[in-house]
Amino acid sequence: MKILVANLGSTSFKYRLFDVSDPSEPVLARGGIERIGSPTARVVVKTTRGERESARHVEDHGDAVQLCLEQLTDPEIGVLADPSEVSAIGFKAVHARNLTGVHLVDDEVLAAMEAFADVAPAHNPPYTKAMRMLRGRFPKLPLVAAFETGFHRTIPEARQRYAIPDAWATELGIRKWGFHGASHRYISWRVPELLGRKDLKVISCHLGGSSSLAAIDSGRSVACSLGMSPQTGLPHNNRVGEFDVFALPPLLRETGKTLEEILDILANQSGLQGLCEARDLRDIEAAADKGDPCAKLAIDVFVDSIRHYLGAFMVALGGLDVIAFTGGIGENSSRIREEVCRDLAWFGIELDPTLNASGEAERKVSSAGSRVQVWTVPTNEELVVARQSRTLLDSGKASMD
Amino acid sequence: MKILVANLGSTSFKYRLFDVSDPSEPVLARGGIERIGSPTARVVVKTTRGERESARHVEDHGDAVQLCLEQLTDPEIGVLADPSEVSAIGFKAVHARNLTGVHLVDDEVLAAMEAFADVAPAHNPPYTKAMRMLRGRFPKLPLVAAFETGFHRTIPEARQRYAIPDAWATELGIRKWGFHGASHRYISWRVPELLGRKDLKVISCHLGGSSSLAAIDSGRSVACSLGMSPQTGLPHNNRVGEFDVFALPPLLRETGKTLEEILDILANQSGLQGLCEARDLRDIEAAADKGDPCAKLAIDVFVDSIRHYLGAFMVALGGLDVIAFTGGIGENSSRIREEVCRDLAWFGIELDPTLNASGEAERKVSSAGSRVQVWTVPTNEELVVARQSRTLLDSGKASMD
Repeated sequence: MKILVANLGSTSFKYRLFDVSDPSEPVLARGGIERIGSPTARVVVKTTRGERESARHVEDHGDAVQLCLEQLTDPEIGVLADPSEVSAIGFKAVHARNLTGVHLVDDEVLAAMEAFADVAPAHNPPYTKAMRMLRGRFPKLPLVAAFETGFHRTIPEARQRYAIPDAWATELGIRKWGFHGASHRYISWRVPELLGRKDLKVISCHLGGSSSLAAIDSGRSVACSLGMSPQTGLPHNNRVGEFDVFALPPLLRETGKTLEEILDILANQSGLQGLCEARDLRDIEAAADKGDPCAKLAIDVFVDSIRHYLGAFMVALGGLDVIAFTGGIGENSSRIREEVCRDLAWFGIELDPTLNASGEAERKVSSAGSRVQVWTVPTNEELVVARQSRTLLDSGKASMD
Repeated sequence: MKILVANLGSTSFKYRLFDVSDPSEPVLARGGIERIGSPTARVVVKTTRGERESARHVEDHGDAVQLCLEQLTDPEIGVLADPSEVSAIGFKAVHARNLTGVHLVDDEVLAAMEAFADVAPAHNPPYTKAMRMLRGRFPKLPLVAAFETGFHRTIPEARQRYAIPDAWATELGIRKWGFHGASHRYISWRVPELLGRKDLKVISCHLGGSSSLAAIDSGRSVACSLGMSPQTGLPHNNRVGEFDVFALPPLLRETGKTLEEILDILANQSGLQGLCEARDLRDIEAAADKGDPCAKLAIDVFVDSIRHYLGAFMVALGGLDVIAFTGGIGENSSRIREEVCRDLAWFGIELDPTLNASGEAERKVSSAGSRVQVWTVPTNEELVVARQSRTLLDSGKASMD
């Protein structure tokens, strides 16, 4: 069974093709199309038989998938005899009003995602638009939505609740859903493999363009720093993270902006970018090194927020065995790892500076004497979505937890 | 020097009269007037010479203070020869736009408090209304506002920031101010006295009608669970605590309410009351004991939130020496203390069930082997305000940090 896992942006389409029938679950091909809609979209593909790169007009996400399928069946570098060999396209979908888990995309799923378009404004609109287009264009190809909230449904009920009228939670879905489920789920699989033990208390630190921590107890999520919307918790590259709704009255009054405009700023011009104008942590670290005080502040706010949840989740777990850093920043920024773990010897957390500085992408970075092991673990969200899609198709059902 | 410390509600006035010239800082009188505005306001007073209780018409806060001064100079039970012996009325004021610290109340202070009336809707309006009235009625009597935010100005800048555009923080005051400063400051004084050491890492848990945790390192606040407004952090009796501003679009759409109405519900009908209809923890504990699932959920959400900040602040402090429980719930609910400290042996936190169950109001409740000492400490916010008022008057200045 071959599963195409898609990662959609508003003008981009990235994919990996997995053969999930093979026990090693190989990636047969990967590729991407950027600047969809422009006359010079960038198209790259790399398969087990070769690679190509070109620039051409790609009208929309339907055209992008069409092009992808043509390349996967290309006589020279293709890995499929026929497009029908693709059993499903799997999506790491974000948020749907009252749905979670894994679903075949149908009208109900799309309506639930569209109902929360303004709760996840960076994520839901491009996904629902592309999914609707693909359903029309490839009606026989199952689309699978693996929701980022699914992994976190094992979080105790009290920890999913805001202290709001009960009906808002039970009827309107105003609760701490948690996100980044594919990445944290991968960590929940991989860390026990690395340590050869399943009964582990793990804090997964997914740090990247958007960031979250999850507390994982013996493989089950018991806490996540992301709440109702993907704009909560840690500061993200341009999304705010923690905020106070009672800052709105003075903000509305003093800026003269509408609520929609303020929310747009919180969703698109806040986070690291709000604090220092840059949104890529590599640029921010470089600016801080040159003495830029705003860049230094942005790093300090980010690190402090990570440490906040690190402490909170140690208590939620009643202890800690492993910290796993993943995501673009978590895997690559030795500086952030060092600042997060600084002065935590009281908790038995101690980095090895040499191991932290460089080495294999997947490695232990804590010292030999550290009671808590600290690792960098490259995440593999696409593999999680491929496996979930296969499990759903194998079940013959339309949805699963 | 005698300082009258006032605690104002919208229809209540409570006070204590301190003699701050005496080294033991005795309370010469205490009293209160409830149901101000009704024909049968309840008036109680207890001095070192006797006590009285009556019901009578009290029109407004000006009348209430007038009545208080008459009772303090009463020939039979009074403790003052003349009202002019009162050097100042000190107020535990909450929030002012761009002001913190301790201030003589003037037009600028009142304007700054009124500018944040909708940020602290339960607190600022009754205070500014009463202060304006008292200034007119007793023009020679200094009014001192000791802001609840003052103690927390030692929190590192990064930990005071939301990840929002810089100008919103620096120009509009949208930052994590922290509150309950008088109570946490008292704990910062009292715990070192109890342990005979100043270099202590302390987490102060002020749990009551409104609740917060503060991290105190060698006497200085380094973190507080309350943020921009008094509606943040832990769930309060009827205020929401942590919330997600991106829950607003679906809430506005689905309930048909205005933003003002939603904010009013978050400020007045949320928190413990939102979760279970009751707002007094004693009632909630009784309901939970009878099997009420909502009451149980409310307790669980409250405890989980306390533990969240407990962990976060242990990391902020890089370790922990003392947990101090204070406030009505913190001092009196052995159940909440027990649930907060449950299964934290990994951190060296272990209660003694017998000590926790009963004893002196101020006592150690941790076991002999607990690496972290846990105490109940009755707070004394009025003493803090009395001392701060004296210090300001002694300085001859109009304000101090």
